[in-house]
Amino acid sequence: MSRKQLNIGLFGFGCVGLGLYEVLQKSPALRANIRNICVRDKDKPRTIGAENFTFDKNDILNDESINVVVELIDDADAAFEIVSAALRKGKAVVSANKKMVAEHFTELLELQREYNVPLLYEAAACASMPIIRNLEEYYDNDLLESIEGIVNGSTNYILTKTFSENLSYADALKQAQDLGFAESNPILDTGGFDAKYKLLILLAHAFGYIATPADLFNIGIDNIGELELKYAKEKGFKIKLVAQAYKAADGSLSAFVIPKFVTPDDRLYNVDDVFNGVITKTSFADTHFFVGRGAGAYPTASAVLSDISALSYEYKYEYKKIYREEDVRLTNEAELKVLLRHRREDAELFKLHFSTVEEAYTNHDSGYITGNITLQSLKALQEKHSGEISFILINVVTETEKAAAAQVVSA
Amino acid sequence: MSRKQLNIGLFGFGCVGLGLYEVLQKSPALRANIRNICVRDKDKPRTIGAENFTFDKNDILNDESINVVVELIDDADAAFEIVSAALRKGKAVVSANKKMVAEHFTELLELQREYNVPLLYEAAACASMPIIRNLEEYYDNDLLESIEGIVNGSTNYILTKTFSENLSYADALKQAQDLGFAESNPILDTGGFDAKYKLLILLAHAFGYIATPADLFNIGIDNIGELELKYAKEKGFKIKLVAQAYKAADGSLSAFVIPKFVTPDDRLYNVDDVFNGVITKTSFADTHFFVGRGAGAYPTASAVLSDISALSYEYKYEYKKIYREEDVRLTNEAELKVLLRHRREDAELFKLHFSTVEEAYTNHDSGYITGNITLQSLKALQEKHSGEISFILINVVTETEKAAAAQVVSA
Repeated sequence: MSRKQLNIGLFGFGCVGLGLYEVLQKSPALRANIRNICVRDKDKPRTIGAENFTFDKNDILNDESINVVVELIDDADAAFEIVSAALRKGKAVVSANKKMVAEHFTELLELQREYNVPLLYEAAACASMPIIRNLEEYYDNDLLESIEGIVNGSTNYILTKTFSENLSYADALKQAQDLGFAESNPILDTGGFDAKYKLLILLAHAFGYIATPADLFNIGIDNIGELELKYAKEKGFKIKLVAQAYKAADGSLSAFVIPKFVTPDDRLYNVDDVFNGVITKTSFADTHFFVGRGAGAYPTASAVLSDISALSYEYKYEYKKIYREEDVRLTNEAELKVLLRHRREDAELFKLHFSTVEEAYTNHDSGYITGNITLQSLKALQEKHSGEISFILINVVTETEKAAAAQVVSA
Repeated sequence: MSRKQLNIGLFGFGCVGLGLYEVLQKSPALRANIRNICVRDKDKPRTIGAENFTFDKNDILNDESINVVVELIDDADAAFEIVSAALRKGKAVVSANKKMVAEHFTELLELQREYNVPLLYEAAACASMPIIRNLEEYYDNDLLESIEGIVNGSTNYILTKTFSENLSYADALKQAQDLGFAESNPILDTGGFDAKYKLLILLAHAFGYIATPADLFNIGIDNIGELELKYAKEKGFKIKLVAQAYKAADGSLSAFVIPKFVTPDDRLYNVDDVFNGVITKTSFADTHFFVGRGAGAYPTASAVLSDISALSYEYKYEYKKIYREEDVRLTNEAELKVLLRHRREDAELFKLHFSTVEEAYTNHDSGYITGNITLQSLKALQEKHSGEISFILINVVTETEKAAAAQVVSA
């Protein structure tokens, strides 16, 4: 199988763009060269000569010798404009922009179909980890039951520092930003939005379900307080921001992003710092576990490189599960065992929303409840009391546990 | 992309064959049905009706309606006969037989090319883990530096029991056999041969190098003695049977199977029981880590199912790295830091073979040496003194460490 010659038009030359430039230098077997680089800022000093750059996107979009556009810019709206224009021009596209892919999933699918050009975005899910490719190719069957993972490197870095070095949340965030692991606007990371965009992408490739960002519920790490940290430390748990999606026996899907207490026997327990870790569970193979760096210029650039390499062999996502057109629906009926931390005076109020209460604790100003609650009630409470409360997932209540609990209540 | 209808002729109906039969029942979206099953033993009672079986391989090989042969028998020679006959008949083949694939790699490659039919064998490498597919598709570039892993479930089970439950080697082996994790002839597993066959397959897909089993060096776990176990336990290490292959700066490859002391900060430390774990390292993405069940009927059947599913979309291995025809050679010059356990009287003799000796210990009847030794010397000692000695890898000596040690010696 011979490789296609790739002439790349690159948008963005931040740390990932520069990383890609360097990685390509070390990949002579890949017949790919960067023809032109489009950047915004005319005055920024750059490590390679000015002759490599343009400030006009049309210099790339209208250049017929360029057959691949690599989009590595921050701004999701500008990115969508570039990506959709490139697809319309019949150029293959590689993007690392999860927000852009998540917000425009259906449109991007349509554009790929209409213009018969591939769009690859492995770097948008877990930086260097080949998770989309595996969901697309290897778990292409009816047997996938769930996918769960740490998919955001910056929050994992912050949480790791909070636990291992007893740093305050603010200091850990500052450190992550200084190291380039967290965006300048940290709310995308710390609020769980970045993880949600990735979950949306994984959901499409894992189960063939296209959600909108508004369909998926996310709680971030910015409300985690001392009480939850203390609870975790006393019990030997860690707290990780976990994105998960799973299929119930009736075929309905649950999907959300929430901080979770992780026990030492959980594979995710040892996924620290900027690493990402994803666990897939299938009916017969039990679990698979993937770990890789979830942030950083080179890991991201290296996933972009793998996509470029795949393009040279004319690889494209088939979106087989989406086109299988089974009736898949998203539900809020999942029951979760959680810890809810609240103000002392709200204890009785919040208990009413739990289907079962296991523990209740209060001190002079705050308290927590552990027990089972539906995703629907949790969402409603989070919307109404955001800022005053914090939820940490203990575990998803299985259907067997739910049935057993119902029996106890009715008995 | 529409799916091809697959009519399967199955060879072998042991636990993996039966597992596949059951997994296929739960995969209606996969348009695959088992047309005929060829088994050897006429008198063995089976869980499904006699009308499903034949005892004549030609009933499958000559059946033109069958377009896929799935080979799941124990005997590697008989398996090769079936697989090569099926390929010659233009039938796609899925096999889980690592010994067969490893022993006939070049011939199987030729047959695939000559008859233009695919042969897939994901289940031959690490049972359910999609490692071949990832090496083939995702690490398709010049940047892969090394691959290292626990690739044999039975020995990992035995070693885990030896450490966690203080079982004797014989008891742990017996338990593994009773649970169906170890073959009836355990030497293939415990001698490191099974791991070597897998390493050979990984080497071809990772670096495009086709070795013969004789080219690759393997030490198993059957000579591990009390002294090494005590050494590991005192230091908080575990011993794992590790297969590894890595590329030096000059492009030469080192590849071998050897028991290794694994420290708690090593990802492989928590890969216990029948799980397999593989770490890939690339120049830019740092490491990726894959974990999954490395033995058992369902995990193996589920990898076979993924191959069958891939065939329905006309997937085949491209063997891109092999056809790239770079000049890759295997070297024995790698330097390893090891522990050598020996009889008390042999201490001085063995020291001479080490390039540097770090520790030396003896008690009333035995002793150990730790230090650096070349793979070549290690092989020579192992051949000559097999049974009297045991080697445990501490770590591969990097080129920087080698250079530093050489300076000390010459100073």
